[in-house]
Amino acid sequence: MPTPSLLPLTDALARWREALEAVGAFRRLPAESVPVAQAHGRVTAVAVWARISSPHYHAVAMDGYVVRSAMTANATPARPVRLRLGEDAWYVNTGDALPQGFDAVIPQEEARAAGGWLEVSEPIPAWSHVRLIGEDMAAAQLVAPAYQRLRPQDLGAIAGSGHRRVQVFRQPRIAILPLGERLIPPDPHVGPGQIIEFNSIVLAAMAREWGAAAHPFPPQDGDLETLFAQVEAALDDHDLVVLNAGASGGARDHAERIIRRLGEVTVRGVALRPGHAVILGHARSKPIVAIPGFPVSAMTALEQIVRPLLEGWLGQSGARAPELQALLPQAMPSDPAVDDFKRVVVAHTYRGAVARELPQAAGAIMTMVRADGVIHIPRGQTHIPAASLVQVALLRPPETIAHTLIHIGSHDLALDILADQLRRAHPDRFLNSLGVDSLEGLHALARGEAHFAGVHLLDPTTGVYNIPAVQRVLPHLPVVVMRFVRRAQGLILPRGNPKRIHTLADLARPDVTFINRQPGSGARQLLDYHLQRQGIAPDAIRGYDRIEHAHLAVAAAVKNGIADAGLGVLTAARALDLDFIPLFLEDYDLVMPVAHYESELLAPILRIIATRDFRQTVAALGGYEVDGMGEIIHPLP
Amino acid sequence: MPTPSLLPLTDALARWREALEAVGAFRRLPAESVPVAQAHGRVTAVAVWARISSPHYHAVAMDGYVVRSAMTANATPARPVRLRLGEDAWYVNTGDALPQGFDAVIPQEEARAAGGWLEVSEPIPAWSHVRLIGEDMAAAQLVAPAYQRLRPQDLGAIAGSGHRRVQVFRQPRIAILPLGERLIPPDPHVGPGQIIEFNSIVLAAMAREWGAAAHPFPPQDGDLETLFAQVEAALDDHDLVVLNAGASGGARDHAERIIRRLGEVTVRGVALRPGHAVILGHARSKPIVAIPGFPVSAMTALEQIVRPLLEGWLGQSGARAPELQALLPQAMPSDPAVDDFKRVVVAHTYRGAVARELPQAAGAIMTMVRADGVIHIPRGQTHIPAASLVQVALLRPPETIAHTLIHIGSHDLALDILADQLRRAHPDRFLNSLGVDSLEGLHALARGEAHFAGVHLLDPTTGVYNIPAVQRVLPHLPVVVMRFVRRAQGLILPRGNPKRIHTLADLARPDVTFINRQPGSGARQLLDYHLQRQGIAPDAIRGYDRIEHAHLAVAAAVKNGIADAGLGVLTAARALDLDFIPLFLEDYDLVMPVAHYESELLAPILRIIATRDFRQTVAALGGYEVDGMGEIIHPLP
Repeated sequence: MPTPSLLPLTDALARWREALEAVGAFRRLPAESVPVAQAHGRVTAVAVWARISSPHYHAVAMDGYVVRSAMTANATPARPVRLRLGEDAWYVNTGDALPQGFDAVIPQEEARAAGGWLEVSEPIPAWSHVRLIGEDMAAAQLVAPAYQRLRPQDLGAIAGSGHRRVQVFRQPRIAILPLGERLIPPDPHVGPGQIIEFNSIVLAAMAREWGAAAHPFPPQDGDLETLFAQVEAALDDHDLVVLNAGASGGARDHAERIIRRLGEVTVRGVALRPGHAVILGHARSKPIVAIPGFPVSAMTALEQIVRPLLEGWLGQSGARAPELQALLPQAMPSDPAVDDFKRVVVAHTYRGAVARELPQAAGAIMTMVRADGVIHIPRGQTHIPAASLVQVALLRPPETIAHTLIHIGSHDLALDILADQLRRAHPDRFLNSLGVDSLEGLHALARGEAHFAGVHLLDPTTGVYNIPAVQRVLPHLPVVVMRFVRRAQGLILPRGNPKRIHTLADLARPDVTFINRQPGSGARQLLDYHLQRQGIAPDAIRGYDRIEHAHLAVAAAVKNGIADAGLGVLTAARALDLDFIPLFLEDYDLVMPVAHYESELLAPILRIIATRDFRQTVAALGGYEVDGMGEIIHPLP
Repeated sequence: MPTPSLLPLTDALARWREALEAVGAFRRLPAESVPVAQAHGRVTAVAVWARISSPHYHAVAMDGYVVRSAMTANATPARPVRLRLGEDAWYVNTGDALPQGFDAVIPQEEARAAGGWLEVSEPIPAWSHVRLIGEDMAAAQLVAPAYQRLRPQDLGAIAGSGHRRVQVFRQPRIAILPLGERLIPPDPHVGPGQIIEFNSIVLAAMAREWGAAAHPFPPQDGDLETLFAQVEAALDDHDLVVLNAGASGGARDHAERIIRRLGEVTVRGVALRPGHAVILGHARSKPIVAIPGFPVSAMTALEQIVRPLLEGWLGQSGARAPELQALLPQAMPSDPAVDDFKRVVVAHTYRGAVARELPQAAGAIMTMVRADGVIHIPRGQTHIPAASLVQVALLRPPETIAHTLIHIGSHDLALDILADQLRRAHPDRFLNSLGVDSLEGLHALARGEAHFAGVHLLDPTTGVYNIPAVQRVLPHLPVVVMRFVRRAQGLILPRGNPKRIHTLADLARPDVTFINRQPGSGARQLLDYHLQRQGIAPDAIRGYDRIEHAHLAVAAAVKNGIADAGLGVLTAARALDLDFIPLFLEDYDLVMPVAHYESELLAPILRIIATRDFRQTVAALGGYEVDGMGEIIHPLP
């Protein structure tokens, strides 16, 4: 957790910049000359002035006949003027220089030429269909200012004004070194305690988007002396070294030791969340930083701390993300000691553009994948009140967000199948699913944060699924409940089922240890409902009080031998290669406000749900029944 | 000019697509497998599902001590619980697997450990500082849907879920062949009738921005047989061939002949402006198009016709540019026979966001450089009425536009110096200058289209510059007139001044032919004023009635021997390497509404104008006096 003693972000940047200036490491990069055709996206180091005019002569602008406009002054349809071809009119092509003495062109398709004569039946204004010299660019004029990031049209203007090459800033060279002992490159066969290192890929791609030449190194796990040598070599070849000192405190200590030995630490810790555990310094007159290992922290630190440096080198000012104003139905707390960057999804719902905070787990790269934007809560502010209008700095284009369906509710793999099929059938639509519990899904609908919610809520007194809960939680919001899937809940068991557990009653055996889910979860409700119906006392089950918070966590407990059995869905068992015995079917339905159900935005998913292909794909996963999928079960007509 | 018989854009695209489908040329591109680290910006061909969970075990989230939460349930500050290190508490690092039986972590900085014991003075909730298995990603879940353009965070999620490689669409390969006989690569020493070919650079850069591998060819000027062979070879290696059949109708005829011989022409001409002269077809089961040669036409045709094809190949839907709503003070006429794309600048002025049409010269690449956005007037519409609110599809980021100063008025090179110095001193500010005549500059201020106007308007009765015109044209708008430069107007003469012309009176010599400017231009006003004062009759000057519309055109007339002398500014003479004899000084002042003069947006240029460096740079150009620059001469205090 950041502590109040951390340096505020702006102070940290200022102090670091001062230190860099003192060692000459904060200045524009040197310029280099590159051929215009290769300068796309590069940044001009100096202004580009036209070497020639364009056109550099009065140019014919259409294929046709050049004439002297004065000779056509009295032409009328009744008394056309006849011009002798080859003398008072000439055929010319687009781009030809206007012959001396001629000042207008009659386009071929409007010209009547025959038998050596051109007939003109109206006065032709001077300079018709002529591009005057310098009309596009005049010699010596400004074509592109300094510090311009070159777009396609800029390249055209620079080339067209007579330049073969253009002076641009050399690209900043950035080395990204992941430090840590247990880091491995991406691999599906990752062992226990090993961590797949992917930050270097993410950080390099970000830096490239900002115009840098980024060089991600493989994970560095040598001893301190080897690391010193690596970092020294990286400093030689690069303008900036980023140590991603990550997975453990040990790596961060290493990073600090390396910077201190090679140079100087200027700032240690910044009041920034996520990403406070940064070290800013310099070595060999070059900036060097250590940024934290959790991916969201690493991305935030790179964006907030490294990006301004890069932009300064290239003469760019902070290119801000486009913003969107959105309603924030729930209050958003913040630590007043830090600049807080909160990731949100934005749904265009019956309440307009509505933002919802994503779980702020710094370790979850999927948070960045799912996020539509970021809300910055400045240092000193304790919260944003509920029902505020907030500015969201967007991570995806506004029109993509406007075409995205937001699901908030209990997540199910069938929604992933739906997302995939939606994307392939409708390349302009997206489905973004946030897994929370069923009840929270309904509350999200009440707040207008989502388009629909997947729920599996059993009413313990009636045994009816979902509809009683909808009526209780959303009494005033017109919604439909659509049948989606019936999903098998069952026993998750070690491979081979060594204790031969087959029924709920087996859980009460003295040799069986169970692992439970938290109260309120669908699986727990289902267990309690059936225990009661079967007259099994919870007390009789060893481990009834030990809980996990997710299907997969239950499966992991079984996998690790902590428990002999758990209750959950097939996909969790399959993910960890465990056995599964289905016991019950639960109704996993979709709840959607009528306004969304009838909207053009949601129409594509309703069509996909209605297809045989979708149903067969879901059924083929195993653990699902798909009869009645798509049927509206509430309200009944 | 487009004719009413041209095929509407949507029909043309549909007909072409049909023809391409018939020959199997409209389908998704094949997939290829690339390492995740190299997939930035590429588009997934199939969905990516997690191969492993992340974390793939319950992971320690902070350096500190693992504990069993149940053992801390009764801890209070008064009666802390003491846990034996190595038995009931262990030191762990971030990323370690949670030891079996332990379920919470106390961060090192909050822990009190000494003498083999850890003292805990409050209950620790279960799962504190633990990342549960699958918290980020669960095995088998959707990580990235098909057709996703991969951002940095997507790469992280794909790598983190156990993938070394990812299936992406092969990049579309596009050949761009400029056809035409007089095309040369960028060169400052371009000869008469030669044309610098830069469209291939621009079009290739555009296609790359859309995800293609674009291959610009050098200008193709061989005979028809050679061209056939070139195009055939290009078809072999590429998915699409673009013929930029450009500078003259001859090239377009060539393009059509080539397509017809190798394949089939589907559409000939599209009701699109600019860019109607396109040919859409296919050859060797591949799409082939010919697009016009004028750069704005070529860019529009590529965007409207080729981009949808590329996006279709990559499963992308039309990524629309961000839009801005702006006031359009003047009516915008349109040809109802075409889909019309009008380029505009957008100024944030005292009237809000205000759009103004740029001169719609299809040949002027600087139009694309200057444009802030495009207004699409659909086919069938004759105009947009004055004072409408319009949607502008932006070509520059909205925040860049908000930080751009728009000058509309008589352009002067000193404004280019100002633009360059502004950009270097304030990387977040831009100056965009549109050259029109002085009077139109004042009208633009009246309409709120610009932030300031450069004017040099002589009142012929009083001999006073600018203030009388401002009082007449802008009686109700509070403005300031700021002294900027006094600019030499003089005689533009052939190198060496063979006819020894030195004064205005020399223009009346019978052996001298003059070239004049249009009535209303500053130079013309100045000439007439001084002719009258010196008692020289306009009739006495040969060529008084022959006019050019720009300083540079006057210089070109002198250069080409059409005239012996013209009146203009030094920069025009210098651009064409001509002699110049200064005759008069004119006051070129800046007029700005008070609301802009006092705005934060304009403050930086006022500061630059006040610097000695700026004044010296302008004075060093020659032809300027800079005394009094920056002084407010109206209204007087």
